Amino acid sequence: MATDRQKGKGTADDLARRKFLSAAAAAGLGGTGLAVGLASCDRPDKTATTAAPAASGSGPGETAPAPGAATRVGGTHGGHEVPPGQLDPYYGFWSGGHSGEFRVLAVPSMREIKRIPVFQPDPLSGWGQTNESKKILGTRPDGSLKFSNGDSHHPVASYANGTYDGKYAWTNDKLNTRIARIRLDTFECDKITELPNVQGLHGACPDKRDPVDANINHTTRLFVGAEFGIPLPNDGKDMENPAKYGSLVTCIDAETMEVRWQCQMDGNMDLLATSYDGKLAAWNQYNSENGLKFADMMVAERDNVVFINVARIEQAVKDRKFKTIGDSKVPVVDGTKNGNKDPKTAVVCYVPIPKNPHGVNATPDGKYFIASGKLSPTCSVIDLSLMLKWFDGEVKEPRDTVVAEPELGLGPLHTTFDGKGNAFTTLFLDSQVVKWDVEAAIKAFKGDKNAKVVLDRIDCNYQPGHLNASMAETREADGKWLVVGSKFSKDRFLPVGPLHSENEQLFDIGGEKMKLIGDHPAHPEPHDFIIVRRDKVKTRQVYNLDDFPNPIKDFKDSRLERKGNKVTVFLAAGAPQFSLPDFKVKRGDEVTIVLTNIDKVEDLTHGIGIQNYSVNMIVNPGETKSVTFKADKPGVYWCYCTHFCHALHLEMRSRMLVEA
Amino acid sequence: MATDRQKGKGTADDLARRKFLSAAAAAGLGGTGLAVGLASCDRPDKTATTAAPAASGSGPGETAPAPGAATRVGGTHGGHEVPPGQLDPYYGFWSGGHSGEFRVLAVPSMREIKRIPVFQPDPLSGWGQTNESKKILGTRPDGSLKFSNGDSHHPVASYANGTYDGKYAWTNDKLNTRIARIRLDTFECDKITELPNVQGLHGACPDKRDPVDANINHTTRLFVGAEFGIPLPNDGKDMENPAKYGSLVTCIDAETMEVRWQCQMDGNMDLLATSYDGKLAAWNQYNSENGLKFADMMVAERDNVVFINVARIEQAVKDRKFKTIGDSKVPVVDGTKNGNKDPKTAVVCYVPIPKNPHGVNATPDGKYFIASGKLSPTCSVIDLSLMLKWFDGEVKEPRDTVVAEPELGLGPLHTTFDGKGNAFTTLFLDSQVVKWDVEAAIKAFKGDKNAKVVLDRIDCNYQPGHLNASMAETREADGKWLVVGSKFSKDRFLPVGPLHSENEQLFDIGGEKMKLIGDHPAHPEPHDFIIVRRDKVKTRQVYNLDDFPNPIKDFKDSRLERKGNKVTVFLAAGAPQFSLPDFKVKRGDEVTIVLTNIDKVEDLTHGIGIQNYSVNMIVNPGETKSVTFKADKPGVYWCYCTHFCHALHLEMRSRMLVEA
Repeated sequence: MATDRQKGKGTADDLARRKFLSAAAAAGLGGTGLAVGLASCDRPDKTATTAAPAASGSGPGETAPAPGAATRVGGTHGGHEVPPGQLDPYYGFWSGGHSGEFRVLAVPSMREIKRIPVFQPDPLSGWGQTNESKKILGTRPDGSLKFSNGDSHHPVASYANGTYDGKYAWTNDKLNTRIARIRLDTFECDKITELPNVQGLHGACPDKRDPVDANINHTTRLFVGAEFGIPLPNDGKDMENPAKYGSLVTCIDAETMEVRWQCQMDGNMDLLATSYDGKLAAWNQYNSENGLKFADMMVAERDNVVFINVARIEQAVKDRKFKTIGDSKVPVVDGTKNGNKDPKTAVVCYVPIPKNPHGVNATPDGKYFIASGKLSPTCSVIDLSLMLKWFDGEVKEPRDTVVAEPELGLGPLHTTFDGKGNAFTTLFLDSQVVKWDVEAAIKAFKGDKNAKVVLDRIDCNYQPGHLNASMAETREADGKWLVVGSKFSKDRFLPVGPLHSENEQLFDIGGEKMKLIGDHPAHPEPHDFIIVRRDKVKTRQVYNLDDFPNPIKDFKDSRLERKGNKVTVFLAAGAPQFSLPDFKVKRGDEVTIVLTNIDKVEDLTHGIGIQNYSVNMIVNPGETKSVTFKADKPGVYWCYCTHFCHALHLEMRSRMLVEA
Repeated sequence: MATDRQKGKGTADDLARRKFLSAAAAAGLGGTGLAVGLASCDRPDKTATTAAPAASGSGPGETAPAPGAATRVGGTHGGHEVPPGQLDPYYGFWSGGHSGEFRVLAVPSMREIKRIPVFQPDPLSGWGQTNESKKILGTRPDGSLKFSNGDSHHPVASYANGTYDGKYAWTNDKLNTRIARIRLDTFECDKITELPNVQGLHGACPDKRDPVDANINHTTRLFVGAEFGIPLPNDGKDMENPAKYGSLVTCIDAETMEVRWQCQMDGNMDLLATSYDGKLAAWNQYNSENGLKFADMMVAERDNVVFINVARIEQAVKDRKFKTIGDSKVPVVDGTKNGNKDPKTAVVCYVPIPKNPHGVNATPDGKYFIASGKLSPTCSVIDLSLMLKWFDGEVKEPRDTVVAEPELGLGPLHTTFDGKGNAFTTLFLDSQVVKWDVEAAIKAFKGDKNAKVVLDRIDCNYQPGHLNASMAETREADGKWLVVGSKFSKDRFLPVGPLHSENEQLFDIGGEKMKLIGDHPAHPEPHDFIIVRRDKVKTRQVYNLDDFPNPIKDFKDSRLERKGNKVTVFLAAGAPQFSLPDFKVKRGDEVTIVLTNIDKVEDLTHGIGIQNYSVNMIVNPGETKSVTFKADKPGVYWCYCTHFCHALHLEMRSRMLVEA
């Protein structure tokens, strides 16, 4: 099956042989044969064809490369050339998978310009070791981190007026059920919230407009799904009783990051999109069966896209129509089918679509949600105006909101948009991207046999998952660049032992046909990414000393304060010296170092590392941070600047003297 | 000073105004003024000139890009184009600084193709969490990691016949005084050794030939310096007595990674090089004063390059002429000046050179060591044949081994080679690379006023530190590519908040003039790198099940074994299923998961993440790993595959049931 590939010549018509995968076929996917087949089909030259040079689409107006700039295509080492002295027109925000981090790339050069520590300790910055970061990450009673890793899948960002406002990004932790927020001025994580009574946090999406007050046209809430059903409450009793299992969706306040409410569903809640009018959010559901074992998750011929009516849920909370679960005080509204039989009062709607779908995306015109079929070769297009009518009792069946279901190829996973009416869907099994016309698909669904649905298809590297186009998750989708993340990098880069990098590919989608521009490796394992026009993001490059509660503004303010066996050392760093050449503590003291970087120059970061004490943190220009540890070893321990700062950086040191 | 720049027009002659920095000038460097000046001199277009396209030097014979491949120069986003479907001709091994990791780049495309966890826990692979990795990293009595971070500066690799043999790489941990070894078949760290009685491990270098048995022409030892002097022993007593302070160099067995011996020196021991004949290793010394405070480290007008005579030290150990320090049983030979007054028996030689030098490099012809001046605008060239004669009593003064000391510019830090007699030195303060002729410098030193020493100089980005050319640290230096690491990335990439990436630049050095090819960002903070021809490295891409002591070779071998409250779960992963759909333990049990990846397909890695238990690790094809934790929370906890493996990856799960 995997070797029976469409070599870029497929059309909607010749897909007829690709029938909907039956239960039997799905069961066939259960063995290891398919993966073996997929992975072992050597095809080193698959994307080796150099695309013909062409003037590619330049960036939007104010950020376009200079006219006349050379355009290079066909490279394998990264992306499209951004001429020397010019900056990329887009930021890319990338999840880091179980690396736990959040990444920033420059698009289309595909340079990785920042790794932001989020769920994982970061020895460079001291994230997870400084007192400030431990407060954000959460600790156990003994002061150690509650969680030391994470699995970040989906980066999203805050909206105003239907487009990015550059305020916040968020990402999920599928491993330890958390949501993190990243400030888009400082590119640092500032809040992490753990969600109660859920497991398998997969999709997360901010609202784009207030569902209650339409005048508030910016993000105020964040919605999160839960992919794994668990006993409610999960108390270790009655663990084999399927009736006790459930899955909740969660709403978080975008500013306070506190949980506002949850809603209990039938079946699992995977990936989601929110509507531009703020009223709806919808998840794909691949395990509507609530199956607890592998085979049980693929029994039903249809699963669902599940819509929530946000205003109605919040009204239910106001009306105190909710329960709470276990120790959690979060109101949980009933979103089950049984509790929502009347559309006019329902808080949810379950729309049946072909089995085990994956990924829901909102078209930039605000009209449709598109769910990708995964085990079905189709995408399902749902008309949001019909969905709103269903909630008003004006549409009979949930399924009547489906206005198109084009067959695209094997393993559709995710869909993105160019803002010109076209959708681009990854085919995981075919290792292709398909470009298709949404309105034509709607016409075809109505019976128009002349509707030209599939416009182009192009081979990409093995096992493509997420894809995203520039600004595609906003009303300003601009159809310039498309990035596709492929899980296998085999044959693309020099061998590096058993653990491979992943592979991502950049495509120019400015023209009629998609063009492959280049490959770049990705440290495992980015799942998803959004591509944001650079004018949307305004960073701060230097802190003010007063941004922090306890800055040491001058070398002369340096001091050591002792209270019993607790010692605080107030230290400043100014290139190339620390403000104290040494400081003395006693063995057994609890020592806190408060360090201010008094340099005001952009890029002039200092660090402090304490020899053999496993202490390290950086302070950026103007920043103050602190770290606490026990002085449990006697002797002299050099403290040195760990972040290159000056010609005399090596000489920038202090000594901690620990008296025996 | 910083803005008074040579704009690529400098010659040896017009450097006359750049006098040796006096003590007063060095003191002037002590303030923050210089760094401010350096960093605030906005020069956004500094390297913005697009170099004229030219046919660059291709790689060596068997690894050269295909004839006729397009050559692109002037890009800012990475490196030189490697045509689609072709692989880079070189591996680059990069230190990761206080990120703690080791990196692999492909050169000249400058793609980062792997991050190898070394000194820091890695949530993706489970490094620092699996039992196997904890054994390598070292633990405290309570089972937690002894050290949770590191500061890796210098990557080096093993030799045979004067060139790389592709067996091992090593890197140092300056923070917690360790040396790590990375296997170059699996690209994984396999051993870490902590060194006794030293702090500030900076340089590390393997020997290139046996110093005793000349028939052994491959690496058997590794030498390491110590940048910070400490009391010997460092017991918390008498901490202010300078006479008690000392610094040791350490010799480690390359195979066992055990410490063979140490040698106590006067002054600190910074960076080093070893000779191709195996007989000598030499360190630069920037604090021969043993100063404990900033200003005290710059008092002397001259510091040293310090040579050790390896065979004589090892004979002293054999003759039991050593002491031990504190609890350590490692023999420590006397390498102080007082103990080594007679050259014919001396184990060390202190060669005075201008103050506070940085970096020692060996010329590929095996003849010279070159130390870069840092606070002096010079490099010092030392003739190894004269050094050997000094040890034989045939050369009067150590200084007589210096055969050249050319003035190159402000802040020479490191030097590399093209194998054609030319040296390339970074100027940290001038932000330039200088290409100079070593033999011409020797002639000039002898008085030849017509000797043309400086052949070319080129601007690079702010604050260049290390540089290295392809194969430059071997006899096979090929003069194709040069990489320069610059500490500041200001103006080169999109702004990302207060913490910047670093910037690295690729130069084509195949022609008479150096050519800038491109910039790429580097996550802080790589210090150094080596560039190795790809035919030197032979990787293994899949493990054999029997490479591990306890593989679960078949799903039917899965089981749970209980001994008291210790439970071991033997589990296999084969796409897209775990071998057990669930397993049951009791609250309070100590649970060990032993997981084997039975898939044999390259790139088909699986992971296991246990919800809310902060457990995650991967297993590569054929690999078996284990993780142990306490089941301290009752309830159902989904275990899921965290590394994308299959179309039904999301469905690949098991359940851990923890009975209350």
